[in-house]
Amino acid sequence: MDARTARRRLASARVGHLATVTASHRAHLVPCCFVFDVRTVYSAIDAKAKSTLDLRRLQNIRANGSVSLLVDHYDEDWTTLWWVRVDGTGRTVDEPDERQRAIDLLTAKYEQYRSAPPPGPVLAIDVDGWRMWP
Amino acid sequence: MDARTARRRLASARVGHLATVTASHRAHLVPCCFVFDVRTVYSAIDAKAKSTLDLRRLQNIRANGSVSLLVDHYDEDWTTLWWVRVDGTGRTVDEPDERQRAIDLLTAKYEQYRSAPPPGPVLAIDVDGWRMWP
Repeated sequence: MDARTARRRLASARVGHLATVTASHRAHLVPCCFVFDVRTVYSAIDAKAKSTLDLRRLQNIRANGSVSLLVDHYDEDWTTLWWVRVDGTGRTVDEPDERQRAIDLLTAKYEQYRSAPPPGPVLAIDVDGWRMWP
Repeated sequence: MDARTARRRLASARVGHLATVTASHRAHLVPCCFVFDVRTVYSAIDAKAKSTLDLRRLQNIRANGSVSLLVDHYDEDWTTLWWVRVDGTGRTVDEPDERQRAIDLLTAKYEQYRSAPPPGPVLAIDVDGWRMWP
């Protein structure tokens, strides 16, 4: 897979899988909606039922910035499988203009956000590495 | 989601997402085929093109046993989303009988393995925690 294909697949994927590491060095993993903007991935804590908007993934990135986001394609024809992973540093978006831009991009990508914009914090991943297969 | 539904969904999922932690406490994430057996998840390093059969995920569990495996369902109707995650301790299966049992279970689940059984090591996750949503 070439870099251009990887970028296109990342940008168009509807769901990603987000891995973080807890303060005690344990793996943590959730699916998430996200948008890819040049070299940053944004994902919002949205209104899908949550017990709290201060989620474990945000606690984790305060303790350990390492984040990976994976998108992949599964099919019973294993010759068509692929995945793309970006590794980077996670942070909560504090700057209002950047938060608004992220929400705008997420709302443009996901029609579902138009009637209910995500109320919670926005997580950014500043991407510093790409891996793709095959 | 009740525990029985979570077990059924984990057992029948065709692909999982496996998070491990590197020796330097960074997140690592790959999709994988797997089988769930009572309280252990097995995943084999298979013949899907790999640069080496001694993969990063195996190096990671030698340094840090923490492993999470997630299965999820995505749909544009967000009222139907769900995920199930098992957290546990990873190990490479060394005992020949256990390895054979894992390969048999994987081959029973995935027809694709019948013509090409996985040649590489088998990773076991001894599950000690379940999380599910919603």
